[in-house]
Amino acid sequence: MSNFHVYDTTLRDGAQQEGLNLSVSDKLAIAGYLDDLGVGFIEGGWPGANPKDTEFFRRARTELDLKNATLAAFGSTRRAHTRAADDPQVRALLDAQTDVVTLVAKSHTRHVEEALRTTPEENLAMIADTVSFLTREGRSVFLDAEHFFDGYALDPAYALEVVHTAAQAGAEVIALCDTNGGMLPPRVTDVVGEVLGHTQARLGIHCHNDTGCAVANSLAAVEAGASHVQGTINGYGERTGNADLVTVVSNLQLKLGREVVQPQRLRQALHLSHAISEVTNVVPYGRQPYVGASAFAHKAGLHASALKVDPDLYQHTDPALVGNSMRTLVSDMAGRASIELKGKELGYDLTGEPELLSRVVSRVKDLEQQGWTFDAADASFELLLREEVTGAPLVYFEAESWRIITDSGTYGDASPVSEATVKLRAAGRRVVATGEGNGPVNALDHALREALSEAYPELAEFELIDFRVRILDAAHGTDATTRVLIETTDGQQIWQTVGVADNIVHASWTALVDSFTYGLLQRGVQPRD
Amino acid sequence: MSNFHVYDTTLRDGAQQEGLNLSVSDKLAIAGYLDDLGVGFIEGGWPGANPKDTEFFRRARTELDLKNATLAAFGSTRRAHTRAADDPQVRALLDAQTDVVTLVAKSHTRHVEEALRTTPEENLAMIADTVSFLTREGRSVFLDAEHFFDGYALDPAYALEVVHTAAQAGAEVIALCDTNGGMLPPRVTDVVGEVLGHTQARLGIHCHNDTGCAVANSLAAVEAGASHVQGTINGYGERTGNADLVTVVSNLQLKLGREVVQPQRLRQALHLSHAISEVTNVVPYGRQPYVGASAFAHKAGLHASALKVDPDLYQHTDPALVGNSMRTLVSDMAGRASIELKGKELGYDLTGEPELLSRVVSRVKDLEQQGWTFDAADASFELLLREEVTGAPLVYFEAESWRIITDSGTYGDASPVSEATVKLRAAGRRVVATGEGNGPVNALDHALREALSEAYPELAEFELIDFRVRILDAAHGTDATTRVLIETTDGQQIWQTVGVADNIVHASWTALVDSFTYGLLQRGVQPRD
Repeated sequence: MSNFHVYDTTLRDGAQQEGLNLSVSDKLAIAGYLDDLGVGFIEGGWPGANPKDTEFFRRARTELDLKNATLAAFGSTRRAHTRAADDPQVRALLDAQTDVVTLVAKSHTRHVEEALRTTPEENLAMIADTVSFLTREGRSVFLDAEHFFDGYALDPAYALEVVHTAAQAGAEVIALCDTNGGMLPPRVTDVVGEVLGHTQARLGIHCHNDTGCAVANSLAAVEAGASHVQGTINGYGERTGNADLVTVVSNLQLKLGREVVQPQRLRQALHLSHAISEVTNVVPYGRQPYVGASAFAHKAGLHASALKVDPDLYQHTDPALVGNSMRTLVSDMAGRASIELKGKELGYDLTGEPELLSRVVSRVKDLEQQGWTFDAADASFELLLREEVTGAPLVYFEAESWRIITDSGTYGDASPVSEATVKLRAAGRRVVATGEGNGPVNALDHALREALSEAYPELAEFELIDFRVRILDAAHGTDATTRVLIETTDGQQIWQTVGVADNIVHASWTALVDSFTYGLLQRGVQPRD
Repeated sequence: MSNFHVYDTTLRDGAQQEGLNLSVSDKLAIAGYLDDLGVGFIEGGWPGANPKDTEFFRRARTELDLKNATLAAFGSTRRAHTRAADDPQVRALLDAQTDVVTLVAKSHTRHVEEALRTTPEENLAMIADTVSFLTREGRSVFLDAEHFFDGYALDPAYALEVVHTAAQAGAEVIALCDTNGGMLPPRVTDVVGEVLGHTQARLGIHCHNDTGCAVANSLAAVEAGASHVQGTINGYGERTGNADLVTVVSNLQLKLGREVVQPQRLRQALHLSHAISEVTNVVPYGRQPYVGASAFAHKAGLHASALKVDPDLYQHTDPALVGNSMRTLVSDMAGRASIELKGKELGYDLTGEPELLSRVVSRVKDLEQQGWTFDAADASFELLLREEVTGAPLVYFEAESWRIITDSGTYGDASPVSEATVKLRAAGRRVVATGEGNGPVNALDHALREALSEAYPELAEFELIDFRVRILDAAHGTDATTRVLIETTDGQQIWQTVGVADNIVHASWTALVDSFTYGLLQRGVQPRD
């Protein structure tokens, strides 16, 4: 394990992703999660290039208590025709006070000439000088050979010269970068093999996903002898992203038998991947290998019946090894076997109930036709199933009407406020209650809680933690049907409910009522008439 | 080209994706797009397995006019110990009246015994009997050897026997399926090579993305000699999805030099990928290789300055070959070089304006800190840039106030209706107008159009085509800051605007006003006082 480097660049290269914007606190939080995952190195950013990254390294010294990982600062070789010791950018790398410094260097002659505007010889001097200056200052120096594969194709002798120069100057790792992401695995295998034939240096690999092969390219390099692999969590990164370290590590460990992180840490992969996506505010990709919400989810009726026989026949690995689990999806493609399995997951034994199963299947099909989705709203599905099992819906209160007013005030003077009024009957009384909020759904949530507070004080412990809106027929813009998914917690459990309607507020009301109903049911609260 | 099969299974295997639900009309629309892309075969579904697929094949005969592709019906080998001619499922395949029938068959002994509950010998008989019955009926028969790679690992002799049996009975293609998706490229290379050493049959490959290697595995099979590749558009499919045919075809054509579709059709790849995602209602994945919105988008300040020198140094291929284009992203990581490039894209020459550039950079950084995002809202960025260039915002009307009421009516009796009232001054007059809608934003849109209809009749041609809501701080649920992205068209152009506020309605108002302002600006309309 110690002889293999898992090197994470989420905080530097990952942050180049379109729409991704990390604060210093975000970066510190992510670094903590990366450490928990067991990566060996965390590239924190480019000190000096922007004030945020400088501050990150300053705060990391006191606020970050890394147990496994070593922090690396990223920067560039010195400018042409200067001394490394005099280059402010190089000095900023020292000021970051990390054990490791990763230097990006050109290895492609046209990039040297056209982007760097210097000679190939001076580029080699810049590498030698900067690497040896930083090693003399006590740093472990890793070198990212930028555009290496393209450069090697154009001028292999020069690209190899870059590797030799860096190694002789003391670089501990030379990472070959497919910066533009155009490689396919066989070429990566060949190039890594050829370079290893010319050097004793430890080689690393840094891939982008422009051909959809970042993971396969990384594995090809490792199988060809590279022992340092770079990537980002969830494959964040510019353009199509970097190699997804979650997938790369899972493949290395579970498919190729290399223990590159401790197994108990890999079992946290799903949790850490999702925790990091909470910080980045990038919606998790459901189809992400290993840790995606759908990665072990089965919808096909064909599979569902066979899954009952032997789940391992239909799984490429045990999902628990990455903290995931198998799910059966309820959908209009589901037959009775899927509903029966799902019922079992929820604690309802439906064997020997073919008519009930058919009723549920047909109701699910009808509702999904209208835009409902139960595969992301288990709680709403359980209420539907319970209604069919018991013969009646679970009703904690009788709604009479609601109304929401959102007012700009005098334009520009103040923040608009929403005010909701709810009229309902609960626990034998008619209640009229009003709530304010910074949006219509927030106001409705407050008014409904207020109206029910006496009959169901338990509601005070429920908190809405996510609210997602999906326009179902985008061709009509705001005229379209709206689906609202709500996530609620009581501090212990988290549950999801769904509502669909033309009006976003109406859809939210439905999901909100389901959320409260499900939460009260889970706590064993009986309807109070 | 004619000697290579691009076989699409979006309508069958792709439809197994979590959250994806296709109507018959959806399937017909997608089949048309697939034909435009130039795939050789379109697997339409499983006739008889569900009424939707039966109806698809019926309607396809009259409503689908395929120019390139051949339609295939998918089904299973006959049941154990029956005759193919008597099996209703096999008869339904004939009734679909397609030229090609693709049969799924087991090639893994444990699946034969535990899922199919028959003997390995009977399974071979089922294959031989069903293939030869369908070929005698005039069909071209392709065989999907399910779980082939896992089956070959367990019992290679039996897996090969399945290939031989199908080939001898007349199957034209034997597609080796990595049904559980656990393979890596080197293993695929080995197995395809070994199977080809034992058969003259045309081999195909069918991959799932559970290790993140579906594309690489497909390419590995082709390089090992397979000449039929299956996949789905945008990689739709169960769990982590199938091999993304857009990426596979682009790689085959642009990286491996195999012309598997006509180049002018590949130039439509982005358009067709997005058109299909409109039908599936699955949000396009921005990081999708080749056709993703971010696939050729550059954010890094480092790159932006070098991009000015020579774009080809930073692109793995010419984006125009797949209908995409290079974009420069404006973000708080952008330096002045990016803003200058972006200005140039928008038609503003900002060279020699360092102070103006600094002002714009700092405003963008401030706003992005608050949750704005300009990389998805070019029109809002252009208005900001224009304001800094001209020294004043572009104002077509002066808003005074707005108010929206959403009322449930008597609960359960009717659909809730939203009503918005807008007060403003335009073209020298004070206007008060009211609009109704099926949601608050829709009502606001109608009221604002009504209020401005006399001053700016041009607005009648603008239509909102997408409306996306993002909760920025999901930890607080409905209390969070809201970002609204609006997409508008005038029938010619499409533009995106953004609004951020605590209140979703307020954020929508901001994005709506920007949308109208930008649209009027583009048409050369001057503010009418």
